[in-house]
Amino acid sequence: MKILLVGYGAMNERVARIAEERGHEIAGVITLSDKSYPYPSYQVDAEWPAADVIIDFSNPALSLPVIEKEHSMPIVMATTGRKEEIIAALEAASQTKPVFFSANMSYGVHILTEIIKYSVPLLQNFDIELTEKHHRKKVDAPSGTLVKLYDAIKEKRGATTPVYDRTKEDTARTDEEVGISVVRGGTIVGEHEVLFAGHDETIQIIHRAQSKDIFASGSIDVAEQLVNKEPGYYTFDNL
Amino acid sequence: MKILLVGYGAMNERVARIAEERGHEIAGVITLSDKSYPYPSYQVDAEWPAADVIIDFSNPALSLPVIEKEHSMPIVMATTGRKEEIIAALEAASQTKPVFFSANMSYGVHILTEIIKYSVPLLQNFDIELTEKHHRKKVDAPSGTLVKLYDAIKEKRGATTPVYDRTKEDTARTDEEVGISVVRGGTIVGEHEVLFAGHDETIQIIHRAQSKDIFASGSIDVAEQLVNKEPGYYTFDNL
Amino acid sequence: MKILLVGYGAMNERVARIAEERGHEIAGVITLSDKSYPYPSYQVDAEWPAADVIIDFSNPALSLPVIEKEHSMPIVMATTGRKEEIIAALEAASQTKPVFFSANMSYGVHILTEIIKYSVPLLQNFDIELTEKHHRKKVDAPSGTLVKLYDAIKEKRGATTPVYDRTKEDTARTDEEVGISVVRGGTIVGEHEVLFAGHDETIQIIHRAQSKDIFASGSIDVAEQLVNKEPGYYTFDNL
Amino acid sequence: MKILLVGYGAMNERVARIAEERGHEIAGVITLSDKSYPYPSYQVDAEWPAADVIIDFSNPALSLPVIEKEHSMPIVMATTGRKEEIIAALEAASQTKPVFFSANMSYGVHILTEIIKYSVPLLQNFDIELTEKHHRKKVDAPSGTLVKLYDAIKEKRGATTPVYDRTKEDTARTDEEVGISVVRGGTIVGEHEVLFAGHDETIQIIHRAQSKDIFASGSIDVAEQLVNKEPGYYTFDNL
Repeated sequence: MKILLVGYGAMNERVARIAEERGHEIAGVITLSDKSYPYPSYQVDAEWPAADVIIDFSNPALSLPVIEKEHSMPIVMATTGRKEEIIAALEAASQTKPVFFSANMSYGVHILTEIIKYSVPLLQNFDIELTEKHHRKKVDAPSGTLVKLYDAIKEKRGATTPVYDRTKEDTARTDEEVGISVVRGGTIVGEHEVLFAGHDETIQIIHRAQSKDIFASGSIDVAEQLVNKEPGYYTFDNL
Repeated sequence: MKILLVGYGAMNERVARIAEERGHEIAGVITLSDKSYPYPSYQVDAEWPAADVIIDFSNPALSLPVIEKEHSMPIVMATTGRKEEIIAALEAASQTKPVFFSANMSYGVHILTEIIKYSVPLLQNFDIELTEKHHRKKVDAPSGTLVKLYDAIKEKRGATTPVYDRTKEDTARTDEEVGISVVRGGTIVGEHEVLFAGHDETIQIIHRAQSKDIFASGSIDVAEQLVNKEPGYYTFDNL
Repeated sequence: MKILLVGYGAMNERVARIAEERGHEIAGVITLSDKSYPYPSYQVDAEWPAADVIIDFSNPALSLPVIEKEHSMPIVMATTGRKEEIIAALEAASQTKPVFFSANMSYGVHILTEIIKYSVPLLQNFDIELTEKHHRKKVDAPSGTLVKLYDAIKEKRGATTPVYDRTKEDTARTDEEVGISVVRGGTIVGEHEVLFAGHDETIQIIHRAQSKDIFASGSIDVAEQLVNKEPGYYTFDNL
Repeated sequence: MKILLVGYGAMNERVARIAEERGHEIAGVITLSDKSYPYPSYQVDAEWPAADVIIDFSNPALSLPVIEKEHSMPIVMATTGRKEEIIAALEAASQTKPVFFSANMSYGVHILTEIIKYSVPLLQNFDIELTEKHHRKKVDAPSGTLVKLYDAIKEKRGATTPVYDRTKEDTARTDEEVGISVVRGGTIVGEHEVLFAGHDETIQIIHRAQSKDIFASGSIDVAEQLVNKEPGYYTFDNL
């Protein structure tokens, strides 16, 4: 597979390394900057080399023109931020090419979400609490993955209210509340816990990422499947 | 609901307490001994008082004649040991009355098993390892619940081999192996963990029991449903 | 040992049961109410029966007159609330009798605190985060034990700032910050975790209470020692 | 600091990368093979370039001649296997140069051991159980670090008996027993848990390594201190 990378930050460096280890080839890097890269680089508005697939871990300012440009290559989109615009652009592009979008490229996180969706209706009398742990440099909170888990719980349970700081509450927990705890420290790559607490028993479901490689290799897994798909808009749910 | 208890050990004491808290009535205790109980007691071969349901946390020597005796009361059977005989007797009895059997009356443990069955096919490239923790007095190992989890995994994954002591192995782990770890200490009521370990990510699913009340209240939950059922053999899967 | 209980709520009911199981005797209950108890009850201002020790799990309105009353019995004080007043009264009383005070009577929690005090100076480059989990009915947050752990960390590390809600922060974590997470659900008796997060490694120290009996039996352990002490003010640190 | 690496396997590759990131210089690689390396390589019996310190993550066949060779450079020894011979050779060499030895170069693991040594005497009535988790390719079990933890516990508690497979036991746990559980799966870098289980409460102390970098950076930390030391035999206990 020939891969065109959009951006070349920490994530796409990993994509390049793992892709080459797996026998794929990096055709080049699409960029808005003048920096030099270990691969040939191309401005968004220039002519790009032929490739089988595009993998984009960049930012909306770069991703949007990449999606909107006229070309026929499948796109694996892993950029976060300006989500509605990105999705709208991808939906337009999906008329003529297969496109894939996920806020979290880890297969395990995807399965975690599926397991939670399966579990919530079975555990109706259990209180639900969410915790995420990440490295000390992560500023945004809660993580995109925790938000995705919360949305999955809301979809299955109906009325839910997030609670971010129980030290501010002066009444007992209600059934609708879903406590959200955020931990920051060291270099923790990412940990998400869903706690179901019932009468004298608890069930905990915990996903722990050991390295960012899971997101890079997840995007390559997706690319390997996407190149054989009909044009359309894909997510982990219909890939 | 009028409940007839079979045996009056630590578990049925809890059943009595919780049943009364919930507004049910204990009609008596069926026993093989001459001890005195806080409720009227009846020998197995004597005449029993009328009741809506029988709850049995005893032992096969007492349970088998209780199942085989001619009567029309629904039976919630939680006795462990001589499993095949117990099940055969229950199947015969199920022609004329509803009977329920489970080696673990906790609703949470039942749901844990369901979650594991759902997860295994989704996590085919993940290694699976099981751990159970119980109090220092528990001699049998692994626990019945761990065996149930292992059976569920085997059913979904196909070829599996349990490994009880890795210090005895001199080759690396294979895909088929499922490590089984047993921890004993203090007064731990019961903890079961299923670990799915993949490439740079893990998913852990943990059930933790805080008191034996979950087994007692689980049996009462079952009884409340069983009294409204047609004759037949019930488990958590078809209740 | 003859024990005089102050108050007869959920905790002193446990003290009575466990004390009797251990061969001690309950001399009576000191109270401000007119309720009836399974033991003889005495108003604070009435004459009390002779006993070897007083165990108080009540509230300041009852505890303060008990401490201030003229008598020579050792006092194990486990009441929370109006801490400064309670301590001041105990200090005055300690001139003539041994008195003991702790906001948490569990021996394990005391040792947890000691372990944390020992660990903090050894792990200076590690970020520290605290989490406590309790049952859904607990309104106050964070728990008194978490506050005690935080104080121990502050004492050993110097400058620290508690952070209760990271979703409100828009800058990265600083060295001084100690995140505090509060989880509420089901009937969790009490769990406290101290996380030390460093470069590519973490150390977690977790205390988990399985039943409130640990606080009751802890208070009896203390009482058994206190009856042999000289007058003075005792805590777990100097008992 | 100029560093001479002994061996150039997965660990010393990491040492080289992290040392250079920290501003140190790799003077070369000492080897028994003819492979080519990204640094100048030297046979053990050839003349070596001058350096400030030697870091050795290799194997005894290479380490022993390196230790025995006449030179004055401090040695950080992280090779495992043939422990007695290695230590004897290091002790002889420590007459003329500072040498350091540890089976685990992680600072966190060292501190974990210290915390356990501190905790064991405080938790005399608690049962102790050990668990280690590593990647699916690790054949030896239990891990060297678990053995080190076990030895620390034995030193502090006195009589202890390791139990590797409770499914083989037919009597209840005794006070002396220390259960040892080994989990293997995926790419887990390394996790060690010490569980203290008491009456209705537990304390868990868990160390989790996220990448092998902790061993490489730990060895560089040690080297930075060792270069300023007098000749002698050093470990984490007296560095």
